[in-house]
Amino acid sequence: MPGLPTSDVLARRHQRLRRAIEALGVDALVVTAPANIRYLANHVGTAGTLVMTQGGAHLLVDFRYQEAVRSVQVSEAACPGLRVWPVPASYDEALASTLVELGTVTAGIEALNLTVARHEWLLRVLASRGSGITLRSTERVVEQLRLVKDPCEVVALRHAAERVSAVASEAFAAVRAGVTEREVAAVIEGALRSAGYERPAFDTIVASGPHSALPHHRAGSRTLAAGDLVVLDFGGFLDGYCSDLTRTVSVGQPSLEARRLHGAVRDAQAAAIAAVRPGVAATAVDFAARQVLVAHGLDEAFGHGTGHGLGLDVHEEPRVSQPRPDVPPTLLEPGMVFTIEPGAYLAGFGGVRIEDDVLVTEAGCEVLTSVPRDLRVCG
Amino acid sequence: MPGLPTSDVLARRHQRLRRAIEALGVDALVVTAPANIRYLANHVGTAGTLVMTQGGAHLLVDFRYQEAVRSVQVSEAACPGLRVWPVPASYDEALASTLVELGTVTAGIEALNLTVARHEWLLRVLASRGSGITLRSTERVVEQLRLVKDPCEVVALRHAAERVSAVASEAFAAVRAGVTEREVAAVIEGALRSAGYERPAFDTIVASGPHSALPHHRAGSRTLAAGDLVVLDFGGFLDGYCSDLTRTVSVGQPSLEARRLHGAVRDAQAAAIAAVRPGVAATAVDFAARQVLVAHGLDEAFGHGTGHGLGLDVHEEPRVSQPRPDVPPTLLEPGMVFTIEPGAYLAGFGGVRIEDDVLVTEAGCEVLTSVPRDLRVCG
Repeated sequence: MPGLPTSDVLARRHQRLRRAIEALGVDALVVTAPANIRYLANHVGTAGTLVMTQGGAHLLVDFRYQEAVRSVQVSEAACPGLRVWPVPASYDEALASTLVELGTVTAGIEALNLTVARHEWLLRVLASRGSGITLRSTERVVEQLRLVKDPCEVVALRHAAERVSAVASEAFAAVRAGVTEREVAAVIEGALRSAGYERPAFDTIVASGPHSALPHHRAGSRTLAAGDLVVLDFGGFLDGYCSDLTRTVSVGQPSLEARRLHGAVRDAQAAAIAAVRPGVAATAVDFAARQVLVAHGLDEAFGHGTGHGLGLDVHEEPRVSQPRPDVPPTLLEPGMVFTIEPGAYLAGFGGVRIEDDVLVTEAGCEVLTSVPRDLRVCG
Repeated sequence: MPGLPTSDVLARRHQRLRRAIEALGVDALVVTAPANIRYLANHVGTAGTLVMTQGGAHLLVDFRYQEAVRSVQVSEAACPGLRVWPVPASYDEALASTLVELGTVTAGIEALNLTVARHEWLLRVLASRGSGITLRSTERVVEQLRLVKDPCEVVALRHAAERVSAVASEAFAAVRAGVTEREVAAVIEGALRSAGYERPAFDTIVASGPHSALPHHRAGSRTLAAGDLVVLDFGGFLDGYCSDLTRTVSVGQPSLEARRLHGAVRDAQAAAIAAVRPGVAATAVDFAARQVLVAHGLDEAFGHGTGHGLGLDVHEEPRVSQPRPDVPPTLLEPGMVFTIEPGAYLAGFGGVRIEDDVLVTEAGCEVLTSVPRDLRVCG
């Protein structure tokens, strides 16, 4: 299957996971997060449950996916040690039966993904069967493996990032007074498909004029007007991996204040990129951006984190944000991939955000996205 | 705010919810599912937590959404009794503080949405503060209200369904030998935007030839060839409400077996539509479709349910599927909206699915989507 890692890559992931499972003192890990299932078993689907044990990889899938799993299993991307358990009706019912049949004593669950309802149901059913199986909450077990990308993932992320330039060019060409945000978003999403992306990685953001001060505005019916700042935030999935880019452009000539705001954010982003190297805390990258905005009197205007990890999910580890007392800081390592996207938002006036995707290298970092960062005048 | 229900509609929803909250014996319901938050508070965002009490609607939102909430609150779509609680950093931290400050005794949580990790964290923090607050798992409290659409929702769903015809025309025109599934998907998604949809309601499915036997195949690099059956499954969000349509077409003249398969599914769908009326169990609608496929010897080929509710979410209540011992059947009522989408899939040969969206009326049902259902020959 093109685009899926080969069996030997999966075997190494399994080996690392099994060490983690052993360290946790559980004999099985119930994997329910779709990206984790894909990472470990090359199963690409919106449903499925994976039970990883020291001896095997047990994939529970319903009728809809069995044909797809079979075709992966006869390819070079076959998941090592895979056993498929058909799910006739309910995934939870099938999971309970599988855990019992495997003779599980303690199963780890993914507490960040499993819902309280599924957890309570499983506890009740396992108890009613007198199975004696204990469920233990775990967090970020597979996500920890995913934090440092392996070489085939770096290749995939580089490809995903490279193609975003062509999409940016089409986006810039579409921005002019008189078109709506939604029309610009349609051009961007068409360009994502034309560039070969499977689908947008998230809802495309086209935030114009006062909307640009709303960091998570999507794209609405507002018509762009001369003098608007327009935040364009988009990305796509390519072979399962994401790209994520933001540029802020001006419709016609920008005001002096718009130029200043843009310049401050650009400087903040440059400072953050310059701070990236192995051994540095992710929080220090955030600090580097934040200090520049503070110096411009814009600390209040920057209310979100500087970046987020990028991989099979569009938001994953590491968090590149301010330190939190309860979260130990992630120290950067070669192979980590994340966004750097400081912004500044002035209610009623407008906002600016600039975002690139970076890979931590031995020497510092490689910026995967290459689109000019100056305040582009469109229309 | 265009597209959002007015304050009086929200007030009626709150009234019904407060009766449900009282019946549950809790003094607050912590609403975490985004569609439920939108339904109750007109907050359209990917983050936010809503605490509904007998006296108020407490919306916890971070910096990114405060401007958007303010603009709704000065419009005719303002949420009655809304109090905004800014979230400086962590939503869970803010939720714990809010529950304490409101003097909560027992708070219901949405067990189908809240993760085990958030639940355990909340329990730990509430206990460590000696708050004495109890959390009780609840399921489908707001979803029960959403099951029967109110008039403004019916209007929204009708609008969302009407526009899908234009998209289908463009999709049919794009299907021909030599194009890839992904190219057809790009045409469909462009057409969704052109038709005014905010975004696709789900990943567009273009499943051709042998892929058409995979009910949840998305759209890949396969090139369409003469004689292929092609399943086209797509929909969009319009003002927050979904449409969802599937047609199966043939690239050039279909084989006799393809015609037979299509005819069987079309008959199954017609039987299911004819079975819809108030008072009938949703499972009976599934049964009607299934019996037709059984008569064609295709019972094994139909491995999924007949349909699902449609509204703010693309998959919601009611489930139109086979009876389950643990789930009481939903009896249909006027105002319910769901899909009817039987299919038949023959591994290696291909598959057919036909899907429309229906509204239960006093007299029976209204089919909201109007696209011819015959096996269209494209290319």
